[in-house]
Amino acid sequence: MKLTILFGGASFEHEISIVSAITLKEKLENFTIDFVFCDSDHSFYLIDPTKMKAVTFSKGLHKKMPKLQMTQGGFEQKTLMGKKVYKSVVLNLIHGADGEDGTIASLLDFYGVKYIGPRTAASVFSFDKVYTKYLCDAIGVQTVRYEVLKRDEQKDISLAYPVIIKPARLGSSIGVSIVKDASELDYALDTAYEFDDTVIVEPFLEGAKEYNLAGYKADGVIKFSIVEEPKKEEFLDFEKKYMDFSRSEHVLKADIDEELVKKLQINFKKVYDGLFEGSLIRCDFFVHDDEVLLNEINPIPGSMANYLFEDFAQVIEELASSLPHKKRINATYEYIHSISKAKGK
Amino acid sequence: MKLTILFGGASFEHEISIVSAITLKEKLENFTIDFVFCDSDHSFYLIDPTKMKAVTFSKGLHKKMPKLQMTQGGFEQKTLMGKKVYKSVVLNLIHGADGEDGTIASLLDFYGVKYIGPRTAASVFSFDKVYTKYLCDAIGVQTVRYEVLKRDEQKDISLAYPVIIKPARLGSSIGVSIVKDASELDYALDTAYEFDDTVIVEPFLEGAKEYNLAGYKADGVIKFSIVEEPKKEEFLDFEKKYMDFSRSEHVLKADIDEELVKKLQINFKKVYDGLFEGSLIRCDFFVHDDEVLLNEINPIPGSMANYLFEDFAQVIEELASSLPHKKRINATYEYIHSISKAKGK
Repeated sequence: MKLTILFGGASFEHEISIVSAITLKEKLENFTIDFVFCDSDHSFYLIDPTKMKAVTFSKGLHKKMPKLQMTQGGFEQKTLMGKKVYKSVVLNLIHGADGEDGTIASLLDFYGVKYIGPRTAASVFSFDKVYTKYLCDAIGVQTVRYEVLKRDEQKDISLAYPVIIKPARLGSSIGVSIVKDASELDYALDTAYEFDDTVIVEPFLEGAKEYNLAGYKADGVIKFSIVEEPKKEEFLDFEKKYMDFSRSEHVLKADIDEELVKKLQINFKKVYDGLFEGSLIRCDFFVHDDEVLLNEINPIPGSMANYLFEDFAQVIEELASSLPHKKRINATYEYIHSISKAKGK
Repeated sequence: MKLTILFGGASFEHEISIVSAITLKEKLENFTIDFVFCDSDHSFYLIDPTKMKAVTFSKGLHKKMPKLQMTQGGFEQKTLMGKKVYKSVVLNLIHGADGEDGTIASLLDFYGVKYIGPRTAASVFSFDKVYTKYLCDAIGVQTVRYEVLKRDEQKDISLAYPVIIKPARLGSSIGVSIVKDASELDYALDTAYEFDDTVIVEPFLEGAKEYNLAGYKADGVIKFSIVEEPKKEEFLDFEKKYMDFSRSEHVLKADIDEELVKKLQINFKKVYDGLFEGSLIRCDFFVHDDEVLLNEINPIPGSMANYLFEDFAQVIEELASSLPHKKRINATYEYIHSISKAKGK
């Protein structure tokens, strides 16, 4: 099938989006793919598939490739002869800001482009960890207890140490610290505030197990991936996570019973239904004291969590043919007509 | 000052956006305003100010005016000589879908345009009445009890009659019904489902008083309007509301004591802080059994609630000079560089 992979973005995860795109090029080798790069100045470039290497971007070689502009229905390239519009389904692969905060979703919606990825509301609820808590509290999905700190409000934390400090709106462990006691708090807060004005504090759950589950809806049904128990060091730092985004090898199923798998799936479904249609998401859970707790929703997981699915090409084909359709409302001028009439004009 | 008023949109409230824009033209007569119309096919047009009349749009005369395109920093007009970019601060005056659902906010953010209006997350929380409940529950603002119904899920309502039925994502009373007993329910639901797949049901609060309060943040402080007690018929139907959007006369302060004013302001501030910066919103409250309940957040109120402010031109000037700045993140290619180096390439 034909697919447009949109990657890059003005985001701290710009580089891992490049890695994700390169990985998917290999995983979807039977697809005809247009690679559209969003530079951090928000210019779009059509990337020669044979140049899909990290150095193309770090050396700025993409700037010599054709520039594209958004237009109704797709990306437009001006040519000597006129213009060409690239119209295939877009896979939004921009991690972090732009891609996961609702900006790109809105842009694609506005220009009437079909896409795989979270819609605007879904993005808002998953991008900001505080809003993820609001969502989960409202729909009855348990999460880790939390407190919110803001840069311009002096406030003590009331949770017992050790705690984990995270910028509210960043993924990939950027700016995240584990704080063992009060002496480490200020440094951890300073680190997190470098990335966001709002910080979330959670208890660090000693002995919690971590499980990842991905899925997507096609033909009205959620299709789940296998459950993975990610290898755990204290937590992945950015460099390790960066390498992690290039994963393409299948992983082994976590060694857990069917009952737990079911519980994870039920929680996933509560989060997904009515909000994440059109996207493939990965939910990261903790199991602690026999409770299932949602840790994070990744609405555009690294390399689309391809390694959790048996046949990833089929996953993308199914998703692409089950995309939600945003009805566009036409103006009828009914009221203006009736009022003009009443006025005798 | 210079200002761009963006109005229209692919929305059931397209026509009332036109009315709002015409009203603001009169209210801001000392401003130099570029009027940018977003047609329901998402084309942009630069409207001749002398043609800012409802019939210009209902007769399609705008299609003969210059077309504009979004570009970094503003709206671009192609001219015989090259191009001209309109760069002044945008006032997002598109009511309903597009304007209030986060689409236009994201578009303006992506293209680096400064604007007055709700940002993407603020839009999501105010546009969908269910998400407004999530927000209020999380931040401790009381609202009316509610149930959610979905088109494809058969479910009885458990609230006692009379109830009020509203499409989750529409303003201006479109699709809203008061249901006095079970015999009227199906018809009311059918009406609401014409506009949205999700419907919200609330008890109809007999004898509740309604109060509207608008405000905005400038220089770090929220500036409040007077409190209005809107004239109440059972509720405004769309045609009455339509006329209501052209209001420009000052209204009288509601006859309430300072303590209640303070309570309304405290609730307004809880909603606004950290979410609605950059916008002028109107919160509509009920007071029932001595409780203050938030009914609705209007992030782009009809004619910007100009009639609630003493000096509306000053309001817009203050807001325009206190807009939040979205930092754009530059790609550094730090990790790609270090990895390429490690590989010796």
